[in-house]
Amino acid sequence: MNIVDIINKKRKKISLTKEEIEYVITNYVSENITDYQMSALLMAITINGMSDEETIYLTDAMLNSGDKIDLTSISGIKLDKHSTGGVGDKTTLILAPIVAATGLNMAKMSGRGLGFTGGTIDKLEAIPGLKTDMSLNDFKKQVEEIHVAIASGSKKLVPADKKMYALRDVTATVESIPLIASSIMSKKLASGADVLVIDVKVGNGALMKNKEDAKKLANLMIKIGKNYNKKVVCILTNMFEPLGEAIGNSLEVEESINVLQGKGPKDITSLVIFLAIQMVKIGKDITIEEATKEVRNVLVTGKALNKFYEVIKYQHGNIKEMVISDKVISIKANKTGFITEINTEAIGELSRKLGAGRYQKEDVIDSKVGLKILKKVGDFVINDEELVKVYLGEKDININEILDCFTINEHYHKPNPLIIETIV
Amino acid sequence: MNIVDIINKKRKKISLTKEEIEYVITNYVSENITDYQMSALLMAITINGMSDEETIYLTDAMLNSGDKIDLTSISGIKLDKHSTGGVGDKTTLILAPIVAATGLNMAKMSGRGLGFTGGTIDKLEAIPGLKTDMSLNDFKKQVEEIHVAIASGSKKLVPADKKMYALRDVTATVESIPLIASSIMSKKLASGADVLVIDVKVGNGALMKNKEDAKKLANLMIKIGKNYNKKVVCILTNMFEPLGEAIGNSLEVEESINVLQGKGPKDITSLVIFLAIQMVKIGKDITIEEATKEVRNVLVTGKALNKFYEVIKYQHGNIKEMVISDKVISIKANKTGFITEINTEAIGELSRKLGAGRYQKEDVIDSKVGLKILKKVGDFVINDEELVKVYLGEKDININEILDCFTINEHYHKPNPLIIETIV
Repeated sequence: MNIVDIINKKRKKISLTKEEIEYVITNYVSENITDYQMSALLMAITINGMSDEETIYLTDAMLNSGDKIDLTSISGIKLDKHSTGGVGDKTTLILAPIVAATGLNMAKMSGRGLGFTGGTIDKLEAIPGLKTDMSLNDFKKQVEEIHVAIASGSKKLVPADKKMYALRDVTATVESIPLIASSIMSKKLASGADVLVIDVKVGNGALMKNKEDAKKLANLMIKIGKNYNKKVVCILTNMFEPLGEAIGNSLEVEESINVLQGKGPKDITSLVIFLAIQMVKIGKDITIEEATKEVRNVLVTGKALNKFYEVIKYQHGNIKEMVISDKVISIKANKTGFITEINTEAIGELSRKLGAGRYQKEDVIDSKVGLKILKKVGDFVINDEELVKVYLGEKDININEILDCFTINEHYHKPNPLIIETIV
Repeated sequence: MNIVDIINKKRKKISLTKEEIEYVITNYVSENITDYQMSALLMAITINGMSDEETIYLTDAMLNSGDKIDLTSISGIKLDKHSTGGVGDKTTLILAPIVAATGLNMAKMSGRGLGFTGGTIDKLEAIPGLKTDMSLNDFKKQVEEIHVAIASGSKKLVPADKKMYALRDVTATVESIPLIASSIMSKKLASGADVLVIDVKVGNGALMKNKEDAKKLANLMIKIGKNYNKKVVCILTNMFEPLGEAIGNSLEVEESINVLQGKGPKDITSLVIFLAIQMVKIGKDITIEEATKEVRNVLVTGKALNKFYEVIKYQHGNIKEMVISDKVISIKANKTGFITEINTEAIGELSRKLGAGRYQKEDVIDSKVGLKILKKVGDFVINDEELVKVYLGEKDININEILDCFTINEHYHKPNPLIIETIV
């Protein structure tokens, strides 16, 4: 076998065999295939696609490129949740303690963000002292003792994905459904949970720009899961505007606590509750009504909030020392009308510009900076009314750049539904 | 401007602007764009194509990446010839002295081969002592004094092409008409001739597998030439079988001398004479009949042969010391019938396996090895009749591999025409 012949096949839109795909992944990880050959192949895949079979072979080859976590020693069902990513998406921070508070096990491996906003790990690390880098034994022990652990993925899990992801990010080969599916599923399969709930974001702030692509991705991931007897549930949700108000690491932790206290923004609160009910229903094999009752109970009694503090304490974090910038600037609407559109991606980029996300892997995130989006699609704003709060650090952004993200119109525009579809 | 955005545009099949293409080439040559980003872009171009305008911008950007040769100090028209490459293609070695013997100037910059056979420079270097690496002044001086010089291209000419070509070779991005056209034309425009005759090979031993693609390439190169007021003539010729009998560097030099002596194989002789007539007609602005007469004259009188020896001597070569392997093995037909097909590419690969071509840039060519193809498409062979002579060096090849290149059939199959079409 020869990498040039394999690239050539995919260039000509011919399907690759299981052996060829294994050859590529093994030799890429061992550095016998160069980055420039891999990027040519990734571009050919991005343009010419892959069959479901090829995607399953690819996922398997990636999964086998490193260690796999065995959680069978933990009794009971182990749940995991993933989001394809969006702006202001702090769902995991809120969802994990809710589900764990009902007695289910949340074994959560998360990543750092490479895109415009931080990942779950970056958000958690806004809490001073908090550790996410733990041994597999400590990870298991924590899940056994307090039902929930949020750890940064070990370097030994799916090394193929780490190399490929870094390359895709700089070669415009991110937007490929088979590559996204195999990247997510190989990592999730390697981290050993039994049930996986995936929040597939759809919109101008997400990888999937429309419902059709999101459904394709969801169905593909479910198919891959079936191949390993793993239950995968995909929920398509709205990313045509930021989720909640807060964007930026400390700000999102603060908002997460607000949601757990019942005083968070409506959209993020509803979404988290919806996802929690799904997970509790599957995890406990009970009805929606029973699951709803359990979720309501842990929220109302404060058990979910306590679980949140318990996790932070267990992982050595000190929430009282978390800092949010006090250099706050109000951005006010420059006309009166209904918000009909928010350029979510541009808002994500602005938060990165402020220091809340990374341009390169080595960049250090400024946890204290960010934005609060006070008005959302469908809202009526009056000229000079507060639209956005900017929490500044070292880096500056342009006020007009923020205002340009909002389309304000004479006529009302119905916002997209929060939950678009559940695919099982 | 940003390379990821540019790759993304081409991935989405959106045309690139002149500025974007210039940005890519300038930054690739200065190593601000990495090989893996360039290979992703090259793959996107190979799959999604480029408009004629984009190809002209690309050619111009490549041309401007390095030095350009100014031949205006040499009086009279300067001619150059290029072949898109095939198996047994020693045309330049014969054509250049013929044209020069008529008094026209042949200023020929040639390359080394990276594919399965050697390039013109590799073939010439089979002659011990022969130098092709010369200063621009020596190149001009030689053209002025003896009307012909064959030099290996300076490293300073089109550095963008050198980097891109090496990358394309190992990333399956060779087969792209816009990339082939811009590679050829940028080099030819940089080497300063007024008239360019391009032999576009068509067939199973060529880059262009069919006439349609070859015509597209020809028309594109002519269009690029027009942009610089350069006359470009493309001749589409047969590469469904090796050209002539000899494949391998010393063997091809020997066959070239045979052609100049009027005792070479019919196909290569006819092709060279056809091309020579075209060049003399354009170069001297005379009729086909007059050009034919001039070409016939330099061949019959031995002037062309003497010019060949003159070039070799001028470039310090010693033809008497050239070595052809004396380890010769006869491969005989294993059945009786008409040859209906020759796998030309496979024969090229066999010659590389013998040592006549390179797998990697650093490989040293074994000049003395090669093959002689004694029977061609349309020929009738009798079982046990000699089909191929193998000139062995250090490396061995399998007899069955050679026999497998020939399809012998009960029924006669008309060979493809030698000259397919002339496009001006």
